Amino acid sequence: MPAFSIIENFKVQTNQEFLDKAAALEPALYEETVTAKRLVTVTADADNGPVLHPQGRIDALSDMAFQKGDKVIIDFGAHQTGYLSFTATTQGSHYDAPAFLKLKFAEVFWELTEDADEYNGWLSRSWIQEEWLHLRILPDTVRLPARYAFRYLQIEVIDTSPKYALKFEQIFCTSVSSAGKDQGRPYQGRDELLKEIDKASVKTLKECMQKVFEDGVKRDRRLWLGDLRLQARTNYVTFQNYDLVKRCLYLFAGMTFKDGRMSACFFHEPQLQADDTYLLDYALLFASVLWDYYEASGDTETMLELYPAAAEQIDICLNTMMDENHTVSDQGEAFWCFLDWGEGLNKQAGAQAVLIYSMRFAIRLAEAAKDERRVRQYASEIEILKKAAREQFWDETQGMFVSGSMRQVSWASQVWMVLAEVLDQEQSRQLLLHTRRFHPAVRMVTPYMYHHYIDALILCGEEELALEELKRFWGGMIQAGADTFWEVYDPDNRQESPYGSTMVNSYCHAWSCTPAYLLRTFYRHK
Amino acid sequence: MPAFSIIENFKVQTNQEFLDKAAALEPALYEETVTAKRLVTVTADADNGPVLHPQGRIDALSDMAFQKGDKVIIDFGAHQTGYLSFTATTQGSHYDAPAFLKLKFAEVFWELTEDADEYNGWLSRSWIQEEWLHLRILPDTVRLPARYAFRYLQIEVIDTSPKYALKFEQIFCTSVSSAGKDQGRPYQGRDELLKEIDKASVKTLKECMQKVFEDGVKRDRRLWLGDLRLQARTNYVTFQNYDLVKRCLYLFAGMTFKDGRMSACFFHEPQLQADDTYLLDYALLFASVLWDYYEASGDTETMLELYPAAAEQIDICLNTMMDENHTVSDQGEAFWCFLDWGEGLNKQAGAQAVLIYSMRFAIRLAEAAKDERRVRQYASEIEILKKAAREQFWDETQGMFVSGSMRQVSWASQVWMVLAEVLDQEQSRQLLLHTRRFHPAVRMVTPYMYHHYIDALILCGEEELALEELKRFWGGMIQAGADTFWEVYDPDNRQESPYGSTMVNSYCHAWSCTPAYLLRTFYRHK
Repeated sequence: MPAFSIIENFKVQTNQEFLDKAAALEPALYEETVTAKRLVTVTADADNGPVLHPQGRIDALSDMAFQKGDKVIIDFGAHQTGYLSFTATTQGSHYDAPAFLKLKFAEVFWELTEDADEYNGWLSRSWIQEEWLHLRILPDTVRLPARYAFRYLQIEVIDTSPKYALKFEQIFCTSVSSAGKDQGRPYQGRDELLKEIDKASVKTLKECMQKVFEDGVKRDRRLWLGDLRLQARTNYVTFQNYDLVKRCLYLFAGMTFKDGRMSACFFHEPQLQADDTYLLDYALLFASVLWDYYEASGDTETMLELYPAAAEQIDICLNTMMDENHTVSDQGEAFWCFLDWGEGLNKQAGAQAVLIYSMRFAIRLAEAAKDERRVRQYASEIEILKKAAREQFWDETQGMFVSGSMRQVSWASQVWMVLAEVLDQEQSRQLLLHTRRFHPAVRMVTPYMYHHYIDALILCGEEELALEELKRFWGGMIQAGADTFWEVYDPDNRQESPYGSTMVNSYCHAWSCTPAYLLRTFYRHK
Repeated sequence: MPAFSIIENFKVQTNQEFLDKAAALEPALYEETVTAKRLVTVTADADNGPVLHPQGRIDALSDMAFQKGDKVIIDFGAHQTGYLSFTATTQGSHYDAPAFLKLKFAEVFWELTEDADEYNGWLSRSWIQEEWLHLRILPDTVRLPARYAFRYLQIEVIDTSPKYALKFEQIFCTSVSSAGKDQGRPYQGRDELLKEIDKASVKTLKECMQKVFEDGVKRDRRLWLGDLRLQARTNYVTFQNYDLVKRCLYLFAGMTFKDGRMSACFFHEPQLQADDTYLLDYALLFASVLWDYYEASGDTETMLELYPAAAEQIDICLNTMMDENHTVSDQGEAFWCFLDWGEGLNKQAGAQAVLIYSMRFAIRLAEAAKDERRVRQYASEIEILKKAAREQFWDETQGMFVSGSMRQVSWASQVWMVLAEVLDQEQSRQLLLHTRRFHPAVRMVTPYMYHHYIDALILCGEEELALEELKRFWGGMIQAGADTFWEVYDPDNRQESPYGSTMVNSYCHAWSCTPAYLLRTFYRHK
């Protein structure tokens, strides 16, 4: 399901004052030197998939000399986001040819069994973390200029020469993050698995906090508005780095489409630039991100300054994207609303729900900004939208919401309608329980969607079930060896990828960091 | 025929004063900015081999945009030794993934049809000039840190992303050489082919004059004593860069094997270091290099200071490497004496001839140094060696010299016996003519050996034939499109390589530069 937005001659509207504020808030990166921990090997087992085998302590490397075709896998003990350094020395005669190396960086060990030459996904192959290096002066201390996301480093010596061998020493990673210290109450529950889940969540978020909140540190490495919302919520109960959220808010408000629509994602290199991608749900949720920020930080000035941009996103939708039934117009297969990856997911009902959900935050903002007109307008509009949602999307026979002209039943539509509080709490609870039994074919694919499912369960009083589902989903990754959480996880399908190939899947992906938020907010004593 | 010398725990003897002199003579490199000239394509024609097709002016590049799988070949118009720079810009949306490029540098266009993954030669694959680059911030002005030897640059865009394309501009090479200006009388002959041969020779030498006289700028990039001799001779009639020869002489004399034997080659990076390779003929020829330098420069001080090292090479051979017949002991298949590449060439007779040849220069040096004892000793010894050569190696039945216990007949043995003047001039002339008719199976492979063949023809009065052979051999390369001369050229076999694969053959190789010396010395008015 390749999904892009490409706008020819994309024009933007800029608020330079906002962009300047964002630029001034560019964070320093904290550096940490992390040494390699041990050597491992990975074998491809036809029945069980790839298997990791400990090979020995990192000290053993000093006894190893590498020539043509030799390779080694180095385990840094945990996921790193940073810059690799190592020293290559020689053994034997004076080197009479360059050393030629191939480096492969892997967040999870099974990436090392994947062959990039066979990559056939629809995202750029350039995201696969491989480098070819010629070392022409030896010994050489190499510090690669690019940042990598990895726990494992495979060094393959393609060639030296018969006259000398290479040795490797002082292998370390300068890991970077702008997160700072976890200021939140550490998770106090007694459940070991939940403790591990909290830890991996916090690490996932930390790794993704760089010059902006990045979606993933292996791939994309970009600020997405939808992801930001979940990162920010988790940040408030962990690192409490308010400035980084503030910076990102000003970025999105500082450069928009010409008509005021907010971009779904934002580039900060080589200069600040809004992407030519608009996703309705992300733009609407800006109201939620701003309210959350205001509630957590108490920063009234920023709230007041950015409230108009939040309201504008709602207004644009209400004024230009609704049909005669007071429902969001379906834009079908276009990449117009995210909700979740997943083959063929129809977005209409979900978009309606996100609009209602977001308006609730917009009303709070309008109240705080003393914008009486919008408070009244939104309060009346929201009832019309909820009624329309029930009338147009509810299927009494199936007992679920449907979406689009083909009346598709999906997990996403039910979850978002619950979060939008289109039904009362008990009806919502029954809807989710019914959905679990029915298990619609159009399933949830991403942790982003799973988060909203857990959130919806909690909202309608199913806190125990929510915790059970959280443990099943994120605990499944822990049991598969994760020390950071993944972009995509399907307990039943290891080969799941929205991109046509797992090779570009990301294994430290911010939208997967929310268990720390959920546990520290709703389950402090579990 | 893999041939290496590897000495465990190699120990050297150092003359720090000599090394300091060499270090102080490290030359500056002259830089020249050379822009790309045109676009070409290369097709692999099954019958005729690869074919080059002009594609258009370099300006056409500004209209081209590159995405996944696109490639372009850029022709710099002539061979370059230097540093590539280019600017990559984008077209389309803001880049949302790195650009991933593969660059291939080629001295001759057919290198572009060779697949490095199929390389199976015995030299390091690291010499194949390929780089993989990720451009992570765009636009980007790239200046590759490594020096390449190339006329053609192929840029293959492995991937961008569907959202943007790459454009390339400001492609240029900062070409480097320490040669300076051609100070020699330009070749004055009227023959167009000879003019072209002279020009390509001078360019070949110029490219290989760097911090030392390099053997080849694509591969090895090292100072070899045998190659130095031919480069220096050509240098005296062209660039007249005496200091660079002086530097190289001091290097070889400044660090030798513990027993005084001179290394066949010398490294100057990361610090000065003699290689653990001894080649008898190269060491003996130091006397010739020193005499040539003295004769050309008149630098008595250097001659006097280095004469002992030159004589020592002769003495070591006379004292330790002779058998009871006054012939050099055959060391069979070991890599002990170079003469030429070529399958199974026996070196014994050639080594004897090089010893005699070199002693003639040693005698001149001894005379200039007023070392009466050695003058007398060498003068008497040389007669014994010549007599032994005739007695042990001359085969009356075949009318040629044989070599080794298997009495091998090779081109190399005949040529070097002529240069050693073991026979009188007419006998030598007859020997060469007979050898041409007989055409021994153990043939000449390298231009290094061909140079000595031409030199031998001139020495015995066959100047016309020498010129004809020079035109056939070096002119053949010109006709195949060479603007610099190659390491290996067999008019009958394009696939000739001493290394098991043409992929590591070098196409700007210093030992091939001697036509400028020969033409400017012996054929000024042809």
